[in-house]
Amino acid sequence: MKTSQSLLTVSLLTLASGIAMAMEPLPANPPVPADNPITAAKIELGKQLFFDPRLSVDGTISCNSCHNVMAGGTDNRPVSVGVAGQKGGRSAPTVWNAAFLSAQFWDGRAATLEDQAKGPILNPVEMGMPNEQAVLDRINAIPGYVQQFKAIFGEVSYDNIAKAIATYERTLVTPNSPFDRYMRGDKSAMSPAAIKGMELVESLGCTGCHAGPNFSGPDLPTGQGFFQKFPTYDSPYTKKYRLKDDKGLYEVTKDPADKHMWRVPTWRNVALTAPYFHNGSVATLDEAVRVMAKTQLNKTLSEEQVNNIVAFLNSLTGEFPAQTLPRLPDLANGSFTTTP
Amino acid sequence: MKTSQSLLTVSLLTLASGIAMAMEPLPANPPVPADNPITAAKIELGKQLFFDPRLSVDGTISCNSCHNVMAGGTDNRPVSVGVAGQKGGRSAPTVWNAAFLSAQFWDGRAATLEDQAKGPILNPVEMGMPNEQAVLDRINAIPGYVQQFKAIFGEVSYDNIAKAIATYERTLVTPNSPFDRYMRGDKSAMSPAAIKGMELVESLGCTGCHAGPNFSGPDLPTGQGFFQKFPTYDSPYTKKYRLKDDKGLYEVTKDPADKHMWRVPTWRNVALTAPYFHNGSVATLDEAVRVMAKTQLNKTLSEEQVNNIVAFLNSLTGEFPAQTLPRLPDLANGSFTTTP
Repeated sequence: MKTSQSLLTVSLLTLASGIAMAMEPLPANPPVPADNPITAAKIELGKQLFFDPRLSVDGTISCNSCHNVMAGGTDNRPVSVGVAGQKGGRSAPTVWNAAFLSAQFWDGRAATLEDQAKGPILNPVEMGMPNEQAVLDRINAIPGYVQQFKAIFGEVSYDNIAKAIATYERTLVTPNSPFDRYMRGDKSAMSPAAIKGMELVESLGCTGCHAGPNFSGPDLPTGQGFFQKFPTYDSPYTKKYRLKDDKGLYEVTKDPADKHMWRVPTWRNVALTAPYFHNGSVATLDEAVRVMAKTQLNKTLSEEQVNNIVAFLNSLTGEFPAQTLPRLPDLANGSFTTTP
Repeated sequence: MKTSQSLLTVSLLTLASGIAMAMEPLPANPPVPADNPITAAKIELGKQLFFDPRLSVDGTISCNSCHNVMAGGTDNRPVSVGVAGQKGGRSAPTVWNAAFLSAQFWDGRAATLEDQAKGPILNPVEMGMPNEQAVLDRINAIPGYVQQFKAIFGEVSYDNIAKAIATYERTLVTPNSPFDRYMRGDKSAMSPAAIKGMELVESLGCTGCHAGPNFSGPDLPTGQGFFQKFPTYDSPYTKKYRLKDDKGLYEVTKDPADKHMWRVPTWRNVALTAPYFHNGSVATLDEAVRVMAKTQLNKTLSEEQVNNIVAFLNSLTGEFPAQTLPRLPDLANGSFTTTP
């Protein structure tokens, strides 16, 4: 994570120069770190771990509980529910296409999917494991996991758990949305309303930030998040949707310049990931569009403009690749029980 | 559900006559009720519903949360955790091969899988929906569900939700366990210890109740559960594992003759479904074998006997058919939110 000053500079430069502002279809594959190459066995192990509730302290919450890949990659709740019915403070971002982001979490505090995966397992209100060793003890009690870790990485380690999960997540890409097909030449793929909406998000300035193939900002080095202040303009929405209660990046850095700075989220599959914003306070996509226009561009949209933009955002829903249900490795002959 | 008197009579008659006591491999397909024929579209709809947490009041719990088909069909917890972190009173039975049971739930109070599926959705400590209409409202807010229900059943109804889920569950069959292969002629499929264990469970009398292809009792008409008293003999285990705190069928009927009567559970995949018994009080399979021998047959087994029986029970772990991860139908353009 870079300092807030340089982040802001990058953001302003990007806005001014229009770098990477052109709309583009989603690449087939996201970037892959040199120290964690993708293999079929690693994807499979990562998928098992992603779906395994035994990574939570009471055996009830898996990564998939909040980042549901059978749906839009979220839980469609304002904020997620972790172990013992505890609620988190922010809305779960989608895991679909997260591999295209240069920084993870709403506040961009994790540089990579690997770093991100290590967080929720140990977060007391999410999966609630007390420490890394407790996670390793869980894994080591499941022979089928130990065998896979040894074959793939040489050993079970917390880093390797994160590497496997991140590898699976890099397969979670949704190609061929109507927008992508349109950009590749199929001019019938988008409705006239969606095309009008596409023109609007450019002319109004939305794509000043929602740029690049993932509509989450320009291409930046890994770990360097693309941040914007939200809300930029105050309006009645600030109070109505409690938009300033959470100070964003500031909560991590305590640098006053980072107050209300947020990593720009993707627009891909946004029609499937209600409710909206870091606190999930806005239930519908049309209202989210109104709020964004007012708080970020100080513009009040007509209903027709809102409808066209919503039509465009719906055209960003991609195809979800068919996947086999993972088989979670068996416990060692009934000797394993989760914390009661 | 028949009256307790006739249930007991059937049980005693069965025990006396040895009907259906011979061990047999698992049939490829379970019985299917005439009013709910299996179709591919219905299986697919049922699978979506089975995995959909939107059937719970706060959008966090699906059927699969407690009956995890990616594992042994349970959550491997003593008792399950429902909405708002609430705990149930009994351990979740496996959904795998449940279609072979003639009555459902630990106390057999549901005659069919259809009847069973209607329970947890409305149970306040499980999925917590307030009433059937609230469930229908949820489904009706999801166009992809409405479309499927209309095509398959003509309409969305609570009965049809249960029919779809039950249809999916009838595909959850695990064939070709080492025992099944052994019974079909592959004499190398079971280890010598498992073969000794198989002989022991017959000679000791375990298969007096754990009979039939599902090791859950003889073939009985739908709705007529095969019940036994547990514990039959008192021992220190009764107190140690709180075996009499829950009165079983009596809790439903209030008939004193039904005190501590339980539907005999399956042995299939039992090695994967720890912890054991209606209250999940016993953590390991070897201890479960010791407890059963003492409480049901008044016998104290040698460690060798226990080990051989455990080897046999491990030979009842079948093959889990590969399945595609379901895609949950999308919400209508962000207009749906779960109860916060």
